[in-house]
Amino acid sequence: MNIVVLAGGVGGSRFLRGVRAAAGQDPDARVTAVVNTGDDMWLAGLRITPDLDTILYTLAGINDEQRGWGRIGETERVSAELQAWGVGWPWFTLGDLDLGAHITRTAWLREGMPLSRVVPRLAARWPLGVELLPATDQEVETHVVTDDGELHFQEWWTRYRAQLPARAFVQHGVEDAVAAPGVLDAITGADLVLLAPSNPVVSIGTILGIPGIADAVRGTRARVVGVSPIIGGAVVRGMADACLTAIGVQTDAAAVALHYGARRDGGLLDGWLVDEVDAAAVDPLRAAGIASAAVPLWMRDEATSAAIATAALSLVE
Amino acid sequence: MNIVVLAGGVGGSRFLRGVRAAAGQDPDARVTAVVNTGDDMWLAGLRITPDLDTILYTLAGINDEQRGWGRIGETERVSAELQAWGVGWPWFTLGDLDLGAHITRTAWLREGMPLSRVVPRLAARWPLGVELLPATDQEVETHVVTDDGELHFQEWWTRYRAQLPARAFVQHGVEDAVAAPGVLDAITGADLVLLAPSNPVVSIGTILGIPGIADAVRGTRARVVGVSPIIGGAVVRGMADACLTAIGVQTDAAAVALHYGARRDGGLLDGWLVDEVDAAAVDPLRAAGIASAAVPLWMRDEATSAAIATAALSLVE
Repeated sequence: MNIVVLAGGVGGSRFLRGVRAAAGQDPDARVTAVVNTGDDMWLAGLRITPDLDTILYTLAGINDEQRGWGRIGETERVSAELQAWGVGWPWFTLGDLDLGAHITRTAWLREGMPLSRVVPRLAARWPLGVELLPATDQEVETHVVTDDGELHFQEWWTRYRAQLPARAFVQHGVEDAVAAPGVLDAITGADLVLLAPSNPVVSIGTILGIPGIADAVRGTRARVVGVSPIIGGAVVRGMADACLTAIGVQTDAAAVALHYGARRDGGLLDGWLVDEVDAAAVDPLRAAGIASAAVPLWMRDEATSAAIATAALSLVE
Repeated sequence: MNIVVLAGGVGGSRFLRGVRAAAGQDPDARVTAVVNTGDDMWLAGLRITPDLDTILYTLAGINDEQRGWGRIGETERVSAELQAWGVGWPWFTLGDLDLGAHITRTAWLREGMPLSRVVPRLAARWPLGVELLPATDQEVETHVVTDDGELHFQEWWTRYRAQLPARAFVQHGVEDAVAAPGVLDAITGADLVLLAPSNPVVSIGTILGIPGIADAVRGTRARVVGVSPIIGGAVVRGMADACLTAIGVQTDAAAVALHYGARRDGGLLDGWLVDEVDAAAVDPLRAAGIASAAVPLWMRDEATSAAIATAALSLVE
């Protein structure tokens, strides 16, 4: 069974850990993650890929669970030097261990290696149990349009905590981007495509914005099932509500499903999982052509994530 | 009084500390160091400038005196990551604090800033009392020709401890290099030009190999005084003997002076300091047109270095 997961960072990494555990029951299962690269950036001359790193560290078991991001046992000696010279963003942490990955990635990219070859080479250090594919090898950068101008998503998100009203999101370079090698084949040849409970606008939305990927999802023989990143009208983590508002979508489990759309109507979804508090959304979504079920969606640990993945796997069988 | 010092790394940094102390007696004294860049290299996608760093750290007082190189209180957390991914040279240490400088320098270079602007910007963090100029903004790389092929000087020096017989030294790119802004003016307008007791082949030799610099030294109205890097037929530090042998010069205080040559014969030197154990060289050198004196040349600390600098300052007054 080939499972393909479209995923952003924190929510995506937790969900993937669950999918890996759920799929582990099946010796023939193969899990591939297509990961958002729209948050990537150049900083201090280094190429930073936040979502890919979060997923890599989480699947490798070296992530900092307490802090919620970065590597366990992290220090910031290099960062202090950079700040003394005014290099980098003072509000964006570059841990020492993390910089090991950034320097390595940048060195390989500078040698001409595409990101889709860099990622498996970085990942080869650990038995992840999931194949990681960047959505694209091109540099697609999500910027946020505010009343005061445009800024990199990362600045809006981390520096301003998404508090500056976002008028729109622009994915610079997305028109000229192509799906990274393996992405379209993975989706087309999948038995199940999952949309992780990641930000529907800047994570899943950016992946789907890369020419060819949304069409591949629409055209795959696989069932396509999403997991709501919204529970009871609130985002599970992050500040996706500010992103949804900017694109005119309500912060609501059913509204996000309808934003992706039912496959029978040219949309993406065969199925959609909502949390038990949103059980009232199940019947209307079914009526709209999206198989739906209400299950506990809080990913507290690997077991709860695995239960969600199992529910997603069985939803449209 | 304008003093210009041509300098390599460890010997150069210790000597410069002495020159700064000696010049400190004179409120109008200005010390400029023209620093070898031939040992510079790209490693792990970062531009490393060993001699400039050694001088920067030493003059800033943050160098590791015990170890003899790098920064005090250094750690190697990033390096361990890089090695796990097989990036960099396992035999070449990249300390965490050191990497702060490498990342900063590389970021600025990648923005298009020439090295001669990067260096003062890095140096501005500390009151050095010496202006640092890279010999050139171009990438000149010293390679070593051995019987088994050619390798970067740094590999020959650090990895093989200069134990592979060197047949020749090649400064790649030196023909097309130009002296960095300020270098020729500093030499031409100097009151005294000093050749630090650095490696005559790969440090001072590489600086002098950059088109225009040797001519500026020959043409300056300043007196030119060198300090022998050889004491009693042995190198004070490093493995300069292997370098001298390759270019057919004896490891001998007088032989190195004659290699630089007397100014009256079209060479570079007005004066040359040898150690007391080499006092026998004084008369022959004087006869060859090079004012010479024998003084203690072991730079044990700032005081002994300052005494050497004072002797150099007064040698040809």
